[in-house]
Order: sequence, then structure tokens, then C-alpha cells
Amino acid sequence: MADSQPLLSLDGDPVAAEALLQDVFGIVVDEVIRKGTSASEKVCEWKEPEELKQLLDLELRHEGESQEQILEHCRAVIRYSVKTCHPRFFNQLFSGLDPHALAGRIVTESLNTSQYTYEIAPVFVLMEEEVLKKLRALVGWSSGDGVFCPGGSISNMYAVNLARYQRYPDCKQRGLRALPPLALFTSKECHYSIKKGAAFLGLGTDSVRVVKADERGKMIPEDLERQISLAKAEGAVPFLVSATSGTTVLGAFDPLEAIADVCQHHGLWLHVDVSWDGPKNGVGWAKAKAHIAPSAPQAAWGGSVLLSQTHRHLLAGIQRADSVAWNPHKLLSTGLQCSALLLRDTSNLLKRCHGSQASYLFQQDKFYDVALDTGDKVVQCGRRVDCLKLWLMWKAQGEQGLQRRVDQAFALARYLVEELKKREGFELVMEPEFVNVCFWFVPPSLRGKKGSPDYSERLSKVAPILKERMVRKGSMMIGYQPHGTRSNFFRMVVANPALTRADVDFLLNELERLGQDL
Amino acid sequence: MADSQPLLSLDGDPVAAEALLQDVFGIVVDEVIRKGTSASEKVCEWKEPEELKQLLDLELRHEGESQEQILEHCRAVIRYSVKTCHPRFFNQLFSGLDPHALAGRIVTESLNTSQYTYEIAPVFVLMEEEVLKKLRALVGWSSGDGVFCPGGSISNMYAVNLARYQRYPDCKQRGLRALPPLALFTSKECHYSIKKGAAFLGLGTDSVRVVKADERGKMIPEDLERQISLAKAEGAVPFLVSATSGTTVLGAFDPLEAIADVCQHHGLWLHVDVSWDGPKNGVGWAKAKAHIAPSAPQAAWGGSVLLSQTHRHLLAGIQRADSVAWNPHKLLSTGLQCSALLLRDTSNLLKRCHGSQASYLFQQDKFYDVALDTGDKVVQCGRRVDCLKLWLMWKAQGEQGLQRRVDQAFALARYLVEELKKREGFELVMEPEFVNVCFWFVPPSLRGKKGSPDYSERLSKVAPILKERMVRKGSMMIGYQPHGTRSNFFRMVVANPALTRADVDFLLNELERLGQDL
Ligand SMILES: Cc1ncc(COP(=O)(O)O)c(C=O)c1O
Ligand SMILES: Cc1ncc(COP(=O)(O)O)c(C=O)c1O
Repeated sequence: MADSQPLLSLDGDPVAAEALLQDVFGIVVDEVIRKGTSASEKVCEWKEPEELKQLLDLELRHEGESQEQILEHCRAVIRYSVKTCHPRFFNQLFSGLDPHALAGRIVTESLNTSQYTYEIAPVFVLMEEEVLKKLRALVGWSSGDGVFCPGGSISNMYAVNLARYQRYPDCKQRGLRALPPLALFTSKECHYSIKKGAAFLGLGTDSVRVVKADERGKMIPEDLERQISLAKAEGAVPFLVSATSGTTVLGAFDPLEAIADVCQHHGLWLHVDVSWDGPKNGVGWAKAKAHIAPSAPQAAWGGSVLLSQTHRHLLAGIQRADSVAWNPHKLLSTGLQCSALLLRDTSNLLKRCHGSQASYLFQQDKFYDVALDTGDKVVQCGRRVDCLKLWLMWKAQGEQGLQRRVDQAFALARYLVEELKKREGFELVMEPEFVNVCFWFVPPSLRGKKGSPDYSERLSKVAPILKERMVRKGSMMIGYQPHGTRSNFFRMVVANPALTRADVDFLLNELERLGQDL
Repeated sequence: MADSQPLLSLDGDPVAAEALLQDVFGIVVDEVIRKGTSASEKVCEWKEPEELKQLLDLELRHEGESQEQILEHCRAVIRYSVKTCHPRFFNQLFSGLDPHALAGRIVTESLNTSQYTYEIAPVFVLMEEEVLKKLRALVGWSSGDGVFCPGGSISNMYAVNLARYQRYPDCKQRGLRALPPLALFTSKECHYSIKKGAAFLGLGTDSVRVVKADERGKMIPEDLERQISLAKAEGAVPFLVSATSGTTVLGAFDPLEAIADVCQHHGLWLHVDVSWDGPKNGVGWAKAKAHIAPSAPQAAWGGSVLLSQTHRHLLAGIQRADSVAWNPHKLLSTGLQCSALLLRDTSNLLKRCHGSQASYLFQQDKFYDVALDTGDKVVQCGRRVDCLKLWLMWKAQGEQGLQRRVDQAFALARYLVEELKKREGFELVMEPEFVNVCFWFVPPSLRGKKGSPDYSERLSKVAPILKERMVRKGSMMIGYQPHGTRSNFFRMVVANPALTRADVDFLLNELERLGQDL
């Protein structure tokens, strides 16, 4: 029975809603903002799954629970969650807590709208475009297109889909069977999303031709040439190269100029996956730009200015890309998800490729310019607002602030490398060029035993043991992995903007403490 | 230069961070929770794009801005955003503001983690599984699989990808060219994401065979049979039928039993897109279950109990589906994005289809059961936590509360229909069976002119004019669209749990006011 009273406790009752939200926000402030970021608290409170299920009382029942129970649930959820904002959380490519970005996320959640039309997201349609324009300018493009996607993996897929559509527009309607066999190229150090994407897009993982990388993890352009010839000889049509700027494990930068030359020569779409990195170049170049023409209009941030600057050697050539996937949710700490796909295209390729002109949503007889509606740029329908957190953070920090933040990450990574070298039990996998620092902790019993036959087998057991110990203790979290023929090593990621040298020192000391009996 | 002081204003300064967040939260409470949900405020403050750009000061600059400016930006962003929580926002399939869900979203954002591993998301890995189990039980499955996706469109794509992989596992590696031409079937009333998905997945839109729907918008099973024969005759291999329970515009329910029979006969994967609806059936059945066996364990919520209940005629047969895409971000008001893909499969199909076993993230030598890591269920890498908001809301309301909420939406939709019939200027497109109420407002000058040759052309101009007027005035928002041969009509969606009869009366009165001179 509907009468004029809403039925449920808080529905239509802003006072009760406000009280609840005040309480929950208070818990967030106490437990996450304060304790979660404090080095004197644990980074996680490990529980076995079965025990954790009991502690959380996860079951969803027929009856609702009291306000006090709900608050208790919020406390438990926070308590047993890993604090990715903690200064000793080094486990992923993202970490830290940017308060402006979090403020942007809270506003986003409270407004709860979808990006698809100007009608229901006027602010965010314009804001997204402004943020994309800025990111494009940092790449070196004064025009172009783009969109925020639910993560870098999907941004990468978009690039592949756009490239094949541009070459074979028929594909959209008639599918891959109407096309010749296609081949795309990426290095063995690329992110796994390239292969996942190829499978999802119907190309199959075999269509991904794996190009050799050098010792540092950089794609070898000569091998790219070779793979292209090989693919052609096998009857496949090469259409895209995905280069990586800042690989996931080693933090390597593919040589973009040389790769762009190859792409140009063969008429291939160049996609650059800067999903881990991104900001670095942008910020490096922004600094460059600031030196030379601090008040130059954005249109003047062309490739040519960028090409003369300090950091260009790492990403030089990126402006020659056709698409770039950039994840501010990693090094820029905007919070998940925040991933931009940037395009050099000015021919409305995105909308042509993904559009379906659904008449119930994208009416053509609207009273405003329907070109503003972004819904047909994407394969989603409802699409979260992912731009505000980045925009607000950028407003607060300025490019200057973000640049300093990234510089600091580089400097801290360098500090870690130097400290590491001073200590006996640590061995670098390689000199890093980015903020990934890969190293082995060699426990006392293995020091000086490098020649022995079971050395690498024994070494590979060390990281998992240390990982278990640190997690059970809650003192820190850092990732490890094997890589090629190298046995398990740690990958330290300096991404949290609140990190200090003390945290880096702690990392090294703690590994020594945890591994002294091994 | 890195020293032991973090460089940026708020980095590593929880006190300043807290102060900022307190201020922003205060703005959210005042401007969204209070004013945004108040019927005496505007639902939107319309601005032309150029003017809005100026008002928002969108430009991202080299220098950062002051705290006061940042707060001003937050106010402006909220002020010019559409209030989807407003009781007169009827524009989309989602609306309203559930405070528990919003609380869950704020906690989610503060914890900022990714679903991929138990290691960094212990609470949410377990919680997601619990929520999925609950949703599956409502579908009628005591076992199965599932995952939260970034929206219903992508959930639908997953279903298509899984169906083709199950039939042709080779597809993952060798791609669609190694397969015969495939055909999938859906009605002309399906959501546009089916075609978008087919294009993205490399199948091409031509692979989507459009099945006729009856007057009410329901798929005609006999035509499905005919289309399957036709496809086979043309040499295509039928592999999937996507039925819709609650179509986007008309709110129609495809006859699942009859469709399941066809699928069974031909060995096709049955996907049911309940992305708009979902809860209704679930809740209808939950109610049924509660009547019969209020404390029955979940395993007992089988199809057979469900099949004897009040609402079964709408979704009877859903338990025969292979996959279901369910969007709690719509009728359940959990907030964008919250979309579950549910699977009957118990053979680990999701991981087999999407997995890539990246060794840097899904190490096999971890100290816990790595089957808990969900990252290889998806084609994303980082994946937002979308379960907490739904879980917390469910905890607070109980299934009982959610059920009442949905019942109320149905009752209010019915109220609207009855009121509409009493008024001269309104005409129903059809009797609704769901909470979409589609109707024309016939302005005074067109009343009684139905026979005249330009009637439908003139009628089609009415909705766009009224829409413009209501938006400029800020009084309400309701969507319209043409549909087949029908000219533009309004689609009222009763989804906001805070709606009352007064809001429905307002809708009708306001349309009369806005259209009285037409
Ligand atoms: C180089 C690279 N590309 C793509 C991705 C995937 O990004 P996302 O997690 O946003 O899908 C990652 C994530 O680690 C990455 O390192
Ligand atoms: C029936 C149906 N399926 C799928 C979708 C797509 O859902 P999403 O917007 O979450 O992608 C919608 C959205 O309106 C829908 O109505």
C-alpha cells in the first residue's frame, strides 16, 4: 500500500540520514584518516578467511539491523581491511590517501550521477573534457579525444578496438570473421591486460605477438620489425603496437621514438600504455614547459617544446602515439578507479566505433547540443564520474604540486637504492629508472652462496616467508614475484605521497628483522 | 630532493586532511543530503555549457588554489549538478539517496582498495561472495559463481563471452576466426548494450538476431524459434539467447519459461538481463519464501518453492538461465556502479575464460588459499569494491525492508496510472506491468484531434518542449523517447524510495502547468 508516508526508516528522512552519515563519517575519520595513516598502527590485521567471516557477520537476513549494529559493521569492515593509505603499504602500484581526491570522491558519491548525458551530468561532462584536454596537452596534443574508462585494462581494450575499427570499419557490423587475421604487438614485459583484452575482443591471445625485451625490460625495436615481418609472412595483418611506459614489474620504458618509426613505416596504430606511469612524463614535461614559457597557452605545449627537455629521453615520442592509456589512480593517488584513454583522433572515431544512438537516452531533438552527450563514446551505458577526484586534487595542488610529488617519489626511490646498496643482505635486480625498485633480500644463511646449485631455489622461498611474516605481524606489505628466470624478488613501489625516508629505512630494517633467522 | 618531510601541504598531515574532509562533508550534508533531497529546492539549475564553464572555473593551472577556493569549487560542483536524489528526478532508471548505501560508498572510498586479491581486500572478497550468494539464492540457485562488473552493459558482455567460450574454448586463444559464424538472439526491446557488446567482442552487430516482440514488448518465443532456424539455414551457429526481464523503456518481461524451453531444445546459453529490474523478482520471491518457510536455510530457496508464488508469472523460469545480469544500482538505489553477473556454472568457467595467471599479482606460493583471489575472474585488473554499499543497505533494511520498498514502488506506479486516467490530457501508452509508466501528455490544442493527419507529428514535439521548460525551471526531470512508430512519450520511473503520492501528483500537475499553452 502506497500512502503519502514513505515506508522505510530513513527514506525521505534527511535528518535521520544525516545523523547516520555523520556517525559513519566520524568512524571514517577516526579509523581511516587518523589511525589508518599512522605508522604506529598496523597496516593490516590478518585473519584467516573462516575466522574473518565470523568476525564480520556477513550474512544477509530477512530482518534489518539496528543503527548501532550498522555502525559496528562499519568499524569491523574498516578494522579488518588493509589500509592502503598506510605509510607501510607498498604492495601495489597505488597507495596513500590524497585528501582532496578523497573529498572529490565523497562529493561524487553523494551526487551519484552517470556521465552519459549533459542533461544529468552537466558539470561532469564539461569537467571530464577539461581534464582530458589537460592530460592530452601533457602528452603533447593540442586537440584530440578521450574518455575515462573503468581501469587501464579496459582503456587498453578500447585502444585495440578503435585501431581495428579504424582500419576495418566493417568489423563493427560484420565482426572479425569478415576481416583477415589480425596481429598486434607488445613486449613480453607488457601488462597482462593486453592478452586478456585480445581474448575478450575476439581476437584471441594468439593474435598478440610477443616482442623481445632487453635486459632492462624495454621492447627491442629490431625484434618488433622481425615480428611484424613474421606475422605478415604468416598471412596476418599487423594493425597495432602497444608500447609500455613504465612496465608493471620492472618499471621499464619502451623506446617510443624507435617504435613510432616502425609503426609509421608499417602504418600501424601506436598505443602507449602508461597505465602505471603517466604522470611522470606529463609532470616532467610540465616542468620543462614552465621553465620555457610559464604562461604559454595550452595550444603551445606541442611536442617540439617537450622534445627539448630533461625527461624526454624516457617518453620522447609519446606525442606520436595514436592512443595513450593513463591511470591517475596509481602514482597520482586519485583513488580507484581513474583511468583515461586519450586519443589523437579528431574524427569522432570513439563515437563512430562505439555509438549505437539509442533513442531513449540520446534523443536528437533535445534542446541543447547533443554532441555534449558522451554516452556513445563508450561501451558502457551508466558510467561513473571518475574525473572530479582528479580535477579537485589538481586544483588544490596545481601542476606544480603534482610535479613535486612525483619528483619526490623519484628521489625516494633513489634514496632506497642507495641505502640498499649499503646493506649486506640486499641485492638490486637492476638499477631502476622509475619508482619500482626490485631487489632480493638475501638472508644470512644464503649470503655468499650464490654459486651453490640450490641457491636460487632457496632464495625463491625467502620472499613468500617474509611476506607471510609481515602480514601476520601487520607491520608492512610489499609485493614479490618471480620474473623470467629470476627467482622471487620484492618490488618496492614508491607511490604514497606521504612517504618519508623514515618509512624507507623502516622497510629495510623490517626485512632484516623478519629474515634474520633464515 | 627527498628529505624526511613530505613536501605537499596535506600529504602526511592527517590533521589538515581531516579538517578539509570535515568541511567538505559539511557541504555535502547541507547541499546534497538536506537541500538536494528537498522538494522545495530545484532538481537542477540549468546553465548553458559556455556559461557553466565560466561559473565552474574549470581550468587546471600550474599553481594550486587555497582551501577556501577548493571548498568554493565543491559548492559550485554541487550547485550546478543535477540532484538525482531529488524527489522530482524521474529521468533515469536510478534515483533517490539511500543513506546506508551512501555510507557504504564513503567507507569504500576511504579504504580505496581493489578486489583482485584476498591479500589486499580480505573483507571485500568475502563480502562480495556473500552478496553474490544471496543474489543467486534469489534467482533460485543454491550454488554457482559470479562477480561484480562495472555496469550492466559489461555484465551482459561477460555473459556473451562466457557462452562462446564454453562452447568453443579455443576462442580464447585462437579468436573468432577459428570458429564458425555465431548467432545470438535477443528481442527488439532489449537494451542497446547487447549490440554494443557484440561489436566490442568482435562478433559484429550482425551476429545479433533481433526477435520480434509483442504489443507489450515481450519477446515472442515462436519468432525466436523462427530466427534460430533462419540463422542455422544461413550457416550460423546459434549459441546464446539474451532475454530481458524489465525492458528499458516499456518495462516488459520476456516469457522466460517458453524461452528456456527453446534454449534447452537447441542447447543454447540462456542469459537473462534483469539489469533494470532484478530486485522485483528477487523480492517477490523472497516474500514468497518468507511466507512459506521464513527460516529456511538458503539452500532450500530452490526454484520449486519459488515457482509456486505470487510474482512467478513475470520471471518464472529465471532459475533455468545460465547467467543473470542484475543491477542493484537501479531500483535498489545502491548508487552507481553496482552490477552483478550471476552464473549457474560451478566449473570455474569465469576464471578459465578470463584468467591469465599473472605471476606478479596472483602468486601461487602465497600463504593463503589463492582460490580466494578473484582477479582472474575478470578482464579488469584493478577492480573497485562495489559490494559494500549493497551489503550495508541490506544489513540495515533486511530483505524485508527492500521488499517493502519495491512493493511501494509498484503501488506508486499503480497510483500514477489511476490518477493519470482521471485526467483529460494524459494517455497511457500501455498498462504497465512494472514501475515504468509510459504516457503521453496531450496538450489542450491537440485534445480530441487524434484523427487529424499531423497529430502524431505535433504530439512528438510536445515532450521535448515540456522537457526544456521543466529543466529551465528546475522543477522536475522526466525522460521521453519515441518508440517504434509511437511518437515521443514520457517514461516515468518510480524508483526513488522516498517518493510519495504528493510527488506523483506534482508530476501530473506540473506537466499540465507547463503544457497549458500548447
Ligand atoms: C602497465 C600497466 N598497464 C595496465 C594496467 C592495468 O590497469 P588497471 O588495473 O587500471 O586495469 C597496469 C596495472 O598494474 C599496468 O601496470
Ligand atoms: C535492461 C537493461 N539492461 C542493461 C542496461 C545497462 O546497464 P548499465 O547502465 O549498468 O550498463 C540497462 C540500463 O538502462 C537496462 O535497462
